[in-house]
This record gives sequence, structure tokens and C-alpha cells, in this order.
Amino acid sequence: MLASAAVLPWNPSGAADGVSALTFDVFGTVVDWRGSIIAEGAAFNRARGKRIDWARFADRWRAGYGPSMNLVRKGELPWMTIDQLHRRVLDQLLVEFQLEDLDEAARDHLNRAWHRLKPWPDGVAGLTRLKKKFIIATLSNGNVALLTNMAKNAGLPWDCILSAELARHYKPDPEAYLTAASLLGLKPAQVMMVAAHKGDLKAAKAVGFHTAFVPRPKEYGPDREPETKPDESCEIVARDFLDLANQLGAPK
Amino acid sequence: MLASAAVLPWNPSGAADGVSALTFDVFGTVVDWRGSIIAEGAAFNRARGKRIDWARFADRWRAGYGPSMNLVRKGELPWMTIDQLHRRVLDQLLVEFQLEDLDEAARDHLNRAWHRLKPWPDGVAGLTRLKKKFIIATLSNGNVALLTNMAKNAGLPWDCILSAELARHYKPDPEAYLTAASLLGLKPAQVMMVAAHKGDLKAAKAVGFHTAFVPRPKEYGPDREPETKPDESCEIVARDFLDLANQLGAPK
Repeated sequence: MLASAAVLPWNPSGAADGVSALTFDVFGTVVDWRGSIIAEGAAFNRARGKRIDWARFADRWRAGYGPSMNLVRKGELPWMTIDQLHRRVLDQLLVEFQLEDLDEAARDHLNRAWHRLKPWPDGVAGLTRLKKKFIIATLSNGNVALLTNMAKNAGLPWDCILSAELARHYKPDPEAYLTAASLLGLKPAQVMMVAAHKGDLKAAKAVGFHTAFVPRPKEYGPDREPETKPDESCEIVARDFLDLANQLGAPK
Repeated sequence: MLASAAVLPWNPSGAADGVSALTFDVFGTVVDWRGSIIAEGAAFNRARGKRIDWARFADRWRAGYGPSMNLVRKGELPWMTIDQLHRRVLDQLLVEFQLEDLDEAARDHLNRAWHRLKPWPDGVAGLTRLKKKFIIATLSNGNVALLTNMAKNAGLPWDCILSAELARHYKPDPEAYLTAASLLGLKPAQVMMVAAHKGDLKAAKAVGFHTAFVPRPKEYGPDREPETKPDESCEIVARDFLDLANQLGAPK
């Protein structure tokens, strides 16, 4: 698994200095959710003779997830996984897009499009390099099952699947980050959060994580201003995961 | 990552029939804890000019872990990770073996010998095959950090690191198994527990898991009778992980 003998044995101690683990935001940072949903939708249209605007569908689906999640964060909804929140939004969208006739199996399959999202082109190669020097883990609001299935579909070589689900607190709540560091047996200062979203980095930095900003200018498609301008929450700014590997000295 | 197009996309639904995921006991089932500790100890003796009997040390260390863990299970100790329980036993053994002069860094390094355990010879090849057909996850009493570091050291290709730590209930408590299935988004009947220990399989079966028994006759060394005789808790009995891959139809 490890290409370089120099980094063996893998044995980071809570007492060690420096960054031992990188934790990654996933939706938008590792995978192109919008492009992937649009591609699934095109296949759906072809198979069912529909003319659904899947770019709009994807944007509405993603836009619905934040408010639902915030209801959970504020305690106005009980704990629900992202699969459950996605499904809640999906069922509303199916009415809006006149797809109420979709049966349960088709709804479940469509909801699991989020398990089949495709990585950005640098994703697998960049993570594979970073894995030679660091523990690489997800730290996503996506649930463990979603992230595990996504990794298997997309070949994402995570050392460990970590999720807000394990803290039962969604990012940017501090518990999500602190639980991840604790499960890795590390202090926050030994972990670097990697994300395309400054809110995520700001929250990670507030609890003592290091931060790396990897802007993904195509995340929201042509009609929404992407986050590309770093601010003080971004210790490192990288063009993509290969650039991040270069900057962090990960072997080729 | 996936060798066979037949199993793509990876998309097990809670509604699907059959086994989608294999969960593995780790200490004794995947890794040879006794042989690994003895090998670490031999290096320790050489480096420090000691004549410690590391076979006895390893057996005493492992024997101490069960009773400590049961204190946690019964609520007589607060939740402690296996790293913490190992360290609790280690500190007692260092007195018994006249190694009280070991400093904190050396104690921490020795305690992390459990992060550096070596797999049985069929371990990596068997898991690599099984991963082509199933989600493969740990389901160990070892904590997430220990299992993650071990995987990185040993090249164990887990899809997901699951641990009793995530349920805060040690095996064989039912919560440990049920939490793992829930995190995988699966019903217990869609998961197969793989272990060298019948107590583990019996507890998994009691909550609805399928079970595979892989006896490891060398686990306890020459002086203790290994568990090799299957009973009614063992649905499948395999010689090793390659035999298990054959029996479960995992591609080569």
C-alpha cells in the first residue's frame, strides 16, 4: 500500500509535532456533485423519455439540503442522515418536476445518485499521492454508508471514512471536527482540513485544525459565483489535489 | 479500484437481498498479535540488552485486556479506548517485568505495537479479493486510530474502518454489531461477520448477521488450545481468507 519505506512504520502519536492527517470535505471538494447528477439525469431522461432540466434539478436538490440540515443542527428535526435529508428534498422536487409517479425503487435509486458522484479529474491521483505521506480521511456531512459506497464506486483511496454522522453534529458545528480528530487519536493541530468552502475551513481553524483551500470554480456551474478568493481562514491555497501534494511534499 | 465491471455501480440498498458487506474481527482473525508482539519484543531486547520473555509478555498483555474491557462493559470503568486499556495493562506489566524505568515516549511507542501488528500470510491477498465483491470493513474492539494506523502499516485494503468505539459498546454487546450495520446503511441480514472466535460470531448471529468462522490455530501459540471446531454459530467455515473468497465467489 505504501510506496515509500521512508514513511513506515505509520505510527503518529498524539505527542508528535506537525500534520499527520488530512481530512477532506467531499461534496464539491472531492466530487463534482452537479456534473454527476446532470449526467445521471441525462440517462434518466433517455430511459424514460423525459425532458427534465437536470441542472436546475441538481441545483434545487443541493439548495434544499442546507436548510434541512440546519433544522437538524438547531434541533428542530431529530438526527437524520444526509441520505434521509436528500430523500426529504427529493420527494418535494419530484412533485415540483411532475415526477410523482416514480415508484419507491426508482426514488431510492435516484436518491443514491449521491453515492455514485464522480471525482474531479485530479481527485484519485491527488489522493493517492497524499496517502503516501498522510492519513487521508473524509470529513463530510455525508453519512458513512454514502461515503463508503462513493469511495468504492469512484476508487477513492481513503484510509478512513469519517463523517459528521459519527459526532451527530453537522459541520460547521465544532463537534464534527473535534470528534474526527479524537477518532484519529490526534490533536486538532495535527490535522489539516481540506475544502473548497471557506466556511468549512473557518470552522475547522476555529477548533485548531490547519487548513488548505482548494477552490473548485466549476462546482456550481455557470450561473453562480464560485468561492475562489482565499481569506485568512486558508493557510494553504492549492489549485487542485496534485498541487496540494506538491506543496505538502507528498512523494510522486 | 474495482476489478470487475459486473459489481459496478456499488450501490447496495437496504432493500436488497443477500450479503453486501463483510465485517471482520481483527485481533487474531486478520493479524497475528502474538507473533507480532514477540517480534517487536525481540528488537526491544536487542536494542536495550534485555532478556524479557516476550511470548509470556504478549500473553499476559492480551489476557489483561479482556477483564479491563469487561469493567467498561459493566460500567465499572468509564468509556476507555483499547489504546487506553492496553496502556493500563502495560503499565502494570512493566512493573511485573522490571521495566519500570521505561520513560513516557518508550511506553507510548511500546503501547502502539498494537498499531503495527502484522497480518496472517493470507490476509492482504484474501481481503483484496473479497473487496471486489463486498464492502469490507473492520468490526473490532480496537479504536479507530489503532485500526487506521494498522491498515496503513500493513496495507489492509478496508473500505471502511468500523469499531466498537463508534457504538461506545464493546463486542459482544449487541450495540457494537447493530451500530456497524446501521452505519453501513444495511440490515443485519445483509452483513456477514468474519471471525476466528465463536463468541464473536454467536453474538453477531444473535442480532441477525450472517457468520463465517476462520479458525486461526496459531493465534495463542503452542500452549493454549485454539478454537478450531465450528459450532452452530458458524454458517461458513473457511481455512483462511483466500478459501473464504473462493467459497463466497469473489473474483480472483
